[in-house]
Amino acid sequence: MEKFFNPRSIAVVGVSEDPRNLGRNITKNLHEFSFDGILYLVGPRGGTAFGRRIHKSVADIPDQVDLAVIMVPARHVASVLEECGQKGIQRAVIETAGFSEYGKEGRQLESQILEVVKKYDMRFIGPNCIGVINMKNGMAVPFPALKDVIPRGKISIISQSGGVGLDYLNVLASENLGLSKFASIGNKLNVDECDLLEYLIQDDDTEIICMYLESIVNGERLMRLARSTSKPILLHKSNIGHLAQQIAQSHTASLSGDDEVVSAALKQVGIARFQDEHTLLNYLKILPLPPMRGNRLAVLSRSGGHAVIAADACEKTGFLLTPFPEPFLREIEKHFRASVIRLTNPLDLGDLFDYEVYSRIVDETLKLPEVDGVVFLHTYISATERENSRALLEKLEEFSVLHGKPVAACVSTDGEEMSILRKTLPNPVFTAPEETITALALLRDFKHDAQPTPKTPPGNSADKEIRAILANSSKSKSPVLLDQALQIIKSCGIGIARHQTVYSLPETLKAAEEIGWPVALKLISQGASHKSDVGGIKININSPEQLHQAYHELDQAGKNIKSSGRCCVLVQSMQKNGLELILGAKQDPTFGPVVLIGLGGIFVELLKDVSMRVTPFGADEAQKMVKELKAFPLLTGVRGQPHRDLDALHQAILSVARLVENFPAIRELDINPLMVLPEGQGVVAVDARIITE
Amino acid sequence: MEKFFNPRSIAVVGVSEDPRNLGRNITKNLHEFSFDGILYLVGPRGGTAFGRRIHKSVADIPDQVDLAVIMVPARHVASVLEECGQKGIQRAVIETAGFSEYGKEGRQLESQILEVVKKYDMRFIGPNCIGVINMKNGMAVPFPALKDVIPRGKISIISQSGGVGLDYLNVLASENLGLSKFASIGNKLNVDECDLLEYLIQDDDTEIICMYLESIVNGERLMRLARSTSKPILLHKSNIGHLAQQIAQSHTASLSGDDEVVSAALKQVGIARFQDEHTLLNYLKILPLPPMRGNRLAVLSRSGGHAVIAADACEKTGFLLTPFPEPFLREIEKHFRASVIRLTNPLDLGDLFDYEVYSRIVDETLKLPEVDGVVFLHTYISATERENSRALLEKLEEFSVLHGKPVAACVSTDGEEMSILRKTLPNPVFTAPEETITALALLRDFKHDAQPTPKTPPGNSADKEIRAILANSSKSKSPVLLDQALQIIKSCGIGIARHQTVYSLPETLKAAEEIGWPVALKLISQGASHKSDVGGIKININSPEQLHQAYHELDQAGKNIKSSGRCCVLVQSMQKNGLELILGAKQDPTFGPVVLIGLGGIFVELLKDVSMRVTPFGADEAQKMVKELKAFPLLTGVRGQPHRDLDALHQAILSVARLVENFPAIRELDINPLMVLPEGQGVVAVDARIITE
Repeated sequence: MEKFFNPRSIAVVGVSEDPRNLGRNITKNLHEFSFDGILYLVGPRGGTAFGRRIHKSVADIPDQVDLAVIMVPARHVASVLEECGQKGIQRAVIETAGFSEYGKEGRQLESQILEVVKKYDMRFIGPNCIGVINMKNGMAVPFPALKDVIPRGKISIISQSGGVGLDYLNVLASENLGLSKFASIGNKLNVDECDLLEYLIQDDDTEIICMYLESIVNGERLMRLARSTSKPILLHKSNIGHLAQQIAQSHTASLSGDDEVVSAALKQVGIARFQDEHTLLNYLKILPLPPMRGNRLAVLSRSGGHAVIAADACEKTGFLLTPFPEPFLREIEKHFRASVIRLTNPLDLGDLFDYEVYSRIVDETLKLPEVDGVVFLHTYISATERENSRALLEKLEEFSVLHGKPVAACVSTDGEEMSILRKTLPNPVFTAPEETITALALLRDFKHDAQPTPKTPPGNSADKEIRAILANSSKSKSPVLLDQALQIIKSCGIGIARHQTVYSLPETLKAAEEIGWPVALKLISQGASHKSDVGGIKININSPEQLHQAYHELDQAGKNIKSSGRCCVLVQSMQKNGLELILGAKQDPTFGPVVLIGLGGIFVELLKDVSMRVTPFGADEAQKMVKELKAFPLLTGVRGQPHRDLDALHQAILSVARLVENFPAIRELDINPLMVLPEGQGVVAVDARIITE
Repeated sequence: MEKFFNPRSIAVVGVSEDPRNLGRNITKNLHEFSFDGILYLVGPRGGTAFGRRIHKSVADIPDQVDLAVIMVPARHVASVLEECGQKGIQRAVIETAGFSEYGKEGRQLESQILEVVKKYDMRFIGPNCIGVINMKNGMAVPFPALKDVIPRGKISIISQSGGVGLDYLNVLASENLGLSKFASIGNKLNVDECDLLEYLIQDDDTEIICMYLESIVNGERLMRLARSTSKPILLHKSNIGHLAQQIAQSHTASLSGDDEVVSAALKQVGIARFQDEHTLLNYLKILPLPPMRGNRLAVLSRSGGHAVIAADACEKTGFLLTPFPEPFLREIEKHFRASVIRLTNPLDLGDLFDYEVYSRIVDETLKLPEVDGVVFLHTYISATERENSRALLEKLEEFSVLHGKPVAACVSTDGEEMSILRKTLPNPVFTAPEETITALALLRDFKHDAQPTPKTPPGNSADKEIRAILANSSKSKSPVLLDQALQIIKSCGIGIARHQTVYSLPETLKAAEEIGWPVALKLISQGASHKSDVGGIKININSPEQLHQAYHELDQAGKNIKSSGRCCVLVQSMQKNGLELILGAKQDPTFGPVVLIGLGGIFVELLKDVSMRVTPFGADEAQKMVKELKAFPLLTGVRGQPHRDLDALHQAILSVARLVENFPAIRELDINPLMVLPEGQGVVAVDARIITE
């Protein structure tokens, strides 16, 4: 990657004398940002530009070149690359558009490019992108003409879209936030987001990594990289469409759409997902502050109204406004001149016009062990309070560092003063109380530490049986039937309801007597994967008479299906005292196996109360999954419900994770319902579907 | 109100020669904003200020005075008002703080003030506020020193907090949004938000009313006023909860209402509630555009990435991106020079660098009957596209007016250019695609028309019985017992489960046989209002043996309570086939009677799936309440559930509304569960609680 960001020499290919030529803009940008390497211009018609010769081909360049920046029509890109290869240029940024994003012809052009780079062992960024910026060496090769107004700093950007990337640059500049490196990756045909992410994680000049992606090439690698670093990674993953849900065959797959899996995976590894620029800015403003190590906030405000708004925001975001200790209050009370305000947290400073005292209060507040962070809401009139306010705001930043606790400053003043603050303060301030609290909540919830990637658990003896069932199903090209699915579940170590598979009415009756009334009858047939849709399920059968009738109805239903293969009946005991959950899994094309737990029964699709994790994950994550459910209190004994067997539930989640990891042939899996019994009694799978490739 | 905003003469009371004196700031502001009336200064120490005499008392003013602006210590306010009264000054703005928001002493000072104004029939705004601004006549009396940088326009502001009010002025100025009138109302001891709202609704210079309130004085009047106008009313109601309540007492002595009721009431009358400044700005930017009459949006974007982000936002906000008609696409295709982009909606203009064509595409798009509004996402480099872009943005505004459909423009460019746009464009642009779509959704969902206030339905013959039960309960100071509550529910016309009230085991047995097995037994006792807590409820009793045991357990439970008054047992049929809802009502201190419907059973507290309305309301609102429930699909037959009797449910809601309106003695009412039976079978109240004053 080094040569993409720190080339000693660059050839810009596609420059002409035409003033509208985009290659000229690239050249201009390198001038504007004072690129500290050597620059060559190339264009088939030759001529001169900016006092430089335009070489007719890279072959004509008298020197060695580290990087080619290519902006020629799509149909010429492969031949330009060929020339680069012959010249020994190993890195290219291809900015030209009109490839696979446009259609079939463009895809063919991409194949040609890939052949050339394979031949010469080259690497390239693009096509269909605006290229790379490195603020350190003035390497700026986007084709839109830029101005060097972007401050230099520690934030690096990877953007799939050039337009969004430029927008992020504007957002940074508007708040005087500093850029380190920028890469627009377009169709990411060769270098992808993970290649760049890996580089930026190692890069000493990068402290925060901000990404915009419309697709994720390799979810597993993205997760591994994110786990490996303590650098904050912020990601806007757009393109949330619901294709996966449209083709889903199981409840699990329809509940875990592509986008839901993305959210779950990112959360799992501590990548902060944002969906709008306000949230991005909140992250960029708050992350440079010391971490928020607890949930207890002190709010100091010069406006009582803003104090009320801040208290509302604390309630919404779950912050505690711990009362100040009495001696502290008695001490600061001395400074209030007219004593017209009661002292609480939030502390209304409305009656106190002494900037020295403000500083002292902030300092003293930060010393309190019962305070994890401070919000200072500062409303001022620039005409009279300019100097004092600016000095105070700088001091707040110092206090933050000194005490290792975040002090978030929120300023309300006129626009002219605000733009001066934006240019002069090292860290940008917030401008509304609710966004200040929201940003602190982001900081509080942010995972700061690197973590090891969990290991995939090894296979065990029961795998043999599972393998046999799946192999058989694959060999005979028939789906996994209900009794086989239950057998697989059982082999995983998950409890299943008592049942027998039978082929006649007398067998059914005998099975019911053995299992014990009431029973359920379920049709087993290749054509009855959605049993209830075809009338293939009969429950609460209490007597031989009822059984007789139910059997005949099932038999009729089975005949209506006209399916090939085995057709028989499962007799199953009716499970009582269970809370109905759904436990499932699916293979996600981007992230691999995903496990889902959710509230079952008639509410499953209505309330969508589910949580999910990408495998592998450990017992701690299984517990968190269950706790995240809104229905979690139902498992711990509210409203007269017994406390449920959480240990067994956690084990079942881990068993399903192991199953789908070790058997990628299982594309979708539903255990629905999974009955969670009272504590000590385990869980029982009542119905199961397994969909294989 | 007229004299508060258009006084011909003002006396500022509390001016001194001390440069730190706040009365001087008021005077300065009147100079800065070029007040077009006559100004007098008053202060007990006399002297001069700004080349004017400081009169020692209002009595010394040689002329008639329309309005006194008072900024003297709290303990002197009453005597200053007395002097004003004697002088014949009928209006005052009291900016002084230190009244009821501070404590008991302050409350006494408020009583004194109220006595004086009663004596002289005066009206005043405040205390504890920053006063009034009218941009038309330069009447600006806040005590913080302001600069006249606020543009004049059609937005008026009512703010309970002075600090938040000033902040709103900064927000308006930062986006070049124009102010008409401003009032900070503080403790609103005399003039309240509704007095001002009524005035602004009539005011020709006001088109949008923006409010910040920490409490609502008269919910019914607020709702009536909102219904009477088609002017948009935007309200930040803060002080949402327990936490906020504590500090509100130390600020403007306001008490917090139930926040969910506030939201329901505001929504009911079309007041747009906002909770943060971004949303406020979105409203202020989008409301001046023509209304969005449908849900079909066309997105035109110069950046493909922004088009994707916009499509995501459309999915989230429920907008339809209708495909463009083929002839339209063929026509605009001609303009794309390199044909590297596929034509869809969102339409990516990335390859098209012709501003004339942009205009034509927008114009043609607006003509399409299948398009209700247009979003134009405009990313540009100011160095090369400044002139063209500014002209285009102005044109977009013209198209909007011309076609009567909103065209929302979103701009991404450098900061310098953005600030020029803010100063020059008549309407401010948006700066992020997702906020543009969000704002259009606000516009789409905004109620634009005035509506009549629904009428309270008249009493009917059944009221006599209800009145008797309530009177009896009130007379004997005993709570309304279960059988009485059910009787009241029945008198309203709501179905109740079959039951009998019995006093002995033989009676119980006889009742069960008559009602039919299975039955439920419920203890009726003054001490058993929470029956299940005291073991006062037995369900699913299937036989005389079970009944025997249940009766004795209930009897024992009744004895344990040791309550006075009647103690007996309700025998009730067990209700099957019903979907469990909760139907309830309460008297809200701010808004009056509120009716609530929600999902019942074990999920009621967990999932909080409820909707509510303030009475009176019509059948249309009852239907909307039910439709708003997440569980609504369960009522219309998903997942094998039968279609439920919605007519009966709507009727029951209206009956409860009528009940609590006609009988304000009913403070709280719960019908829980209300079983909603399959279509045509009605609803059945199984349990009911009525709590009276």
